Amino acid sequence: MNKLLERLIEKNRYLVQYGQVASYIPKLKSANPEDIGICILDMEGNIYCSGVYNKKFTIQSISKVIALMLALVDNGEEEVFTRVGLESTDEPFNSFYKLDLSLENKPANPMINSGAIVTTSLIRGSYEEKFNKILNTIRKITNNNNIGYNKEVYESEKETGDRNRAIAYLLKNKGLLEGDVEEVLDVYFKQCSIELDLIDLAKIGLFLANGCKTLDGSYQGCNTEIATILIAVMTTCGMYDFSGEFAARVGIPSKSGVSGGILSVVPNKYGIGIYGPALDDHGNSIAGFGILKDLSNELGLNIFKICGRN
Amino acid sequence: MNKLLERLIEKNRYLVQYGQVASYIPKLKSANPEDIGICILDMEGNIYCSGVYNKKFTIQSISKVIALMLALVDNGEEEVFTRVGLESTDEPFNSFYKLDLSLENKPANPMINSGAIVTTSLIRGSYEEKFNKILNTIRKITNNNNIGYNKEVYESEKETGDRNRAIAYLLKNKGLLEGDVEEVLDVYFKQCSIELDLIDLAKIGLFLANGCKTLDGSYQGCNTEIATILIAVMTTCGMYDFSGEFAARVGIPSKSGVSGGILSVVPNKYGIGIYGPALDDHGNSIAGFGILKDLSNELGLNIFKICGRN
Amino acid sequence: MNKLLERLIEKNRYLVQYGQVASYIPKLKSANPEDIGICILDMEGNIYCSGVYNKKFTIQSISKVIALMLALVDNGEEEVFTRVGLESTDEPFNSFYKLDLSLENKPANPMINSGAIVTTSLIRGSYEEKFNKILNTIRKITNNNNIGYNKEVYESEKETGDRNRAIAYLLKNKGLLEGDVEEVLDVYFKQCSIELDLIDLAKIGLFLANGCKTLDGSYQGCNTEIATILIAVMTTCGMYDFSGEFAARVGIPSKSGVSGGILSVVPNKYGIGIYGPALDDHGNSIAGFGILKDLSNELGLNIFKICGRN
Amino acid sequence: MNKLLERLIEKNRYLVQYGQVASYIPKLKSANPEDIGICILDMEGNIYCSGVYNKKFTIQSISKVIALMLALVDNGEEEVFTRVGLESTDEPFNSFYKLDLSLENKPANPMINSGAIVTTSLIRGSYEEKFNKILNTIRKITNNNNIGYNKEVYESEKETGDRNRAIAYLLKNKGLLEGDVEEVLDVYFKQCSIELDLIDLAKIGLFLANGCKTLDGSYQGCNTEIATILIAVMTTCGMYDFSGEFAARVGIPSKSGVSGGILSVVPNKYGIGIYGPALDDHGNSIAGFGILKDLSNELGLNIFKICGRN
Repeated sequence: MNKLLERLIEKNRYLVQYGQVASYIPKLKSANPEDIGICILDMEGNIYCSGVYNKKFTIQSISKVIALMLALVDNGEEEVFTRVGLESTDEPFNSFYKLDLSLENKPANPMINSGAIVTTSLIRGSYEEKFNKILNTIRKITNNNNIGYNKEVYESEKETGDRNRAIAYLLKNKGLLEGDVEEVLDVYFKQCSIELDLIDLAKIGLFLANGCKTLDGSYQGCNTEIATILIAVMTTCGMYDFSGEFAARVGIPSKSGVSGGILSVVPNKYGIGIYGPALDDHGNSIAGFGILKDLSNELGLNIFKICGRN
Repeated sequence: MNKLLERLIEKNRYLVQYGQVASYIPKLKSANPEDIGICILDMEGNIYCSGVYNKKFTIQSISKVIALMLALVDNGEEEVFTRVGLESTDEPFNSFYKLDLSLENKPANPMINSGAIVTTSLIRGSYEEKFNKILNTIRKITNNNNIGYNKEVYESEKETGDRNRAIAYLLKNKGLLEGDVEEVLDVYFKQCSIELDLIDLAKIGLFLANGCKTLDGSYQGCNTEIATILIAVMTTCGMYDFSGEFAARVGIPSKSGVSGGILSVVPNKYGIGIYGPALDDHGNSIAGFGILKDLSNELGLNIFKICGRN
Repeated sequence: MNKLLERLIEKNRYLVQYGQVASYIPKLKSANPEDIGICILDMEGNIYCSGVYNKKFTIQSISKVIALMLALVDNGEEEVFTRVGLESTDEPFNSFYKLDLSLENKPANPMINSGAIVTTSLIRGSYEEKFNKILNTIRKITNNNNIGYNKEVYESEKETGDRNRAIAYLLKNKGLLEGDVEEVLDVYFKQCSIELDLIDLAKIGLFLANGCKTLDGSYQGCNTEIATILIAVMTTCGMYDFSGEFAARVGIPSKSGVSGGILSVVPNKYGIGIYGPALDDHGNSIAGFGILKDLSNELGLNIFKICGRN
Repeated sequence: MNKLLERLIEKNRYLVQYGQVASYIPKLKSANPEDIGICILDMEGNIYCSGVYNKKFTIQSISKVIALMLALVDNGEEEVFTRVGLESTDEPFNSFYKLDLSLENKPANPMINSGAIVTTSLIRGSYEEKFNKILNTIRKITNNNNIGYNKEVYESEKETGDRNRAIAYLLKNKGLLEGDVEEVLDVYFKQCSIELDLIDLAKIGLFLANGCKTLDGSYQGCNTEIATILIAVMTTCGMYDFSGEFAARVGIPSKSGVSGGILSVVPNKYGIGIYGPALDDHGNSIAGFGILKDLSNELGLNIFKICGRN
């Protein structure tokens, strides 16, 4: 397996030249596009890593999966999906014109910014408690209490977050968001700034692949119904406005972040963490996509693939 | 199994009151909303049917799956997906404003009208040959040469098809559609008017569940890669702007039609045909959705569900 | 003239039943829809008033005309119209989806909220100075130093202003707005809360009808070119998404406010102030429109009307 | 006057380099961008021409003014403006996405393609009669029976008119257009292909400036109310999505065509015809705009300008 991973990294390294590192905040801009890495954990507890896998990076949009899980646990499906939809969209992640047009009366799904701001707001507790719940959940999943958030990134997010503020105030105007907008956004910016490495990320993947339960059973995050929703939402909405093509080409439920991380889940089999900060036009790791496509093909991980009997 | 099917039909029959039969053409308007039926075929060739399963109905949008398969076989993925996307959308099936806005330079996916008109146009051959290819493919899949199209429905579609004409002329204006618009639409209206019963529909489902191959191996429609794409596209885009929620709630790759039919595929296991002409707001059979949700839960068919080991 | 005004008020009073008083803040909601009034000033200094004309009300969007004048004086046309357009729009006044879509790279015009927030921000000076400039300009035009702003309305605007916050943060994100968003909005909410009566409003009209100069020459607000732009913008954009129809039906350059006020200008002839808090669907005084239409017909004030020679 | 016109043509000739001749049909593409001309007619029957003024060109969108007049005469305002609005828009002339979105239930105004197709359809009579009415009206206005339509241009329009077909079929789908789409479009393409020179065009301008009456009283096209509407609509909507800026900068009611013609009306004073086939980004003659701006300034023709008394 390690050889395979190494090979796939090298095979897809050329893609970096066609991508761009995120540039809206200094910390992301300074990332090295050649720092590509991958970690895979299986259900027997084996761990396979290759490339640059122990560098920390911020999870960014990957945090949306955890926030959705907590919002669902705290409020139930009905309450959450009254305020945010379950539909994929062919719009960019930070688009919100449909809410102004009243084409939709709620954000399309919890994986785009508008939807994720709503789910974060729905986590029970004070703003401090909301964030602590997210952080502690990730610590419990990874069994790693050293995980924290990157203050520099958090402050940059806060400073450049005017589009998210616009989204949040429109959500508030439409009755989809309660409480203080700056406080909700503060939690949102902090959760995006949580920092971990690829082993941690693969552990989150395994936790999901195992039905929101750690391998050793020490932490059960949610029931099976919610776990199923998380996997489905990652499949249909996890890769921004490339989710449909990613489903057809790779078929591994995944969620990407603008830092270049991808959280991938092979149900009942693997948790995968990938890193590669050069992004494609949709905001997904360009090398990460290539590696996952090859991995899916070589190991037969595409959930839409017919096994065949001949 | 037959008892289960019977029970699920009766359990979900009450939903009919919350739906509406399609009313834009006389033939669909005259459908009896109580005519609910289901057929399931398994890989051993067993067939289980219940309710009103041997009445013929027109397949409407379900034909988009076959047209996509043929377009892919005739042109290859690259050629097809240059002209139509693979992204789900939270817009209604007959929306096309994004093409006018140049938000997108091609239809979002092949399961909405604009995308399907493109795929139909890409099937090789004269207009007559295009339609015959579609019809003959369905005959081969079902091993049923009695299948034809309903002339009354076809003529109604043609008469009321001005929105589809608008879509097609805009596609032509944007260089996405070649040839004569009325001729392409003629094929499109005819393919929507192909008439079959639930056993036929379940056979199409089984064909897809088996990797685009009939059980007896008499007909192989496409290779595994294309089959995977078909399953993925049905999952992410098959139920109009309810596809994401359907994926999360049911998790069975499906394609619905405005006549009330649903084609469902449980990869490697089942082909399912469902009928129930009362539709929900998205244009999907309202009882069909209820039955499929229950069926998925009771038989554990949701492809996003973690098996669990405890 | 007084008789005419009285007659037109009574003739159009029935329209009140088809309108609605603005209800988003308590003060506006408590307005009496029967409080209809009008004042006309001519170039000889004559003043004709009828109905409820000495009750104070807040000018709301009418302030956008003054803010535009000051922004133009402070920055010149080129600078201002780089950040806000001169085009009318068939969208509601608080719409801003096109900015998210990048259909337009600036607000359509300075009479919709997004455009007005930009012009207010362009007035030179600290936030306090910006507001004082607006208030003092109105005091100079009306020669009335008792004019101030209504604190209750200002605080209500501030409290319910989330949509304007969304607009302002999006403008900031797009580089069209500088400085602190809450501070700019504070000026904007205050200018909307400036309170005056119909004699004051008619004086503003006469000031514009006289080329931005008071009758006695005591105050010249801007040069002829800017005055022409103000009249043109009021004509094409002053009545929200009813501006075009208002131009065709009435033909008097006007700007309305959600409080029910209308500022009207008959170039070289009259300044008109109208009040009637019941609004039509576009947000314009419903009785005010009726009165102005009749007044335009009876006195031949429509600027698009051919005099005829027969 | 002739000297002035000559001077303004030469002064604005440099603008040609910043424009583009329309290229979607061969005839327009072959126009010489240096062929700039102007004709002005006054109420005393004087005629002043300069530059290339006796070359024929097709009127294109300028025909929308005549079609609107005839539709209003045949149906009355209420009937017409139920199907087409009176609002300017910041969208391009051939945009129609709002009709798909149901943001608007009718075209914004009769000067964009969607609105003009509706007004043409509303002219009473068979399709042949509709066109003949338009052509004969222009012949009567200009007292020139040699005016006809250019068959080559008409056939090119027909051939490349797929976007207009899309618009028309959507209008039909929405119940805004009756009859056969191709037949209506045939009239529309023909009316756009009517060919005349600048003296003819200036005569149309004078006819409008005189309240829809020829100078000699031989032909009265409509009553004063309709004439007022025509002038207002030209002012607010006549120059595509540049109408608002044109109103502020020039202030002369005008309607442009993609061939480079501009029909201008100074109420009670002048009829103006301008030609200059190089177009700006909005589709208006780029030199024509410059000339009209200068002419408006030098002769004080801006209808929004305050005369001033000092």
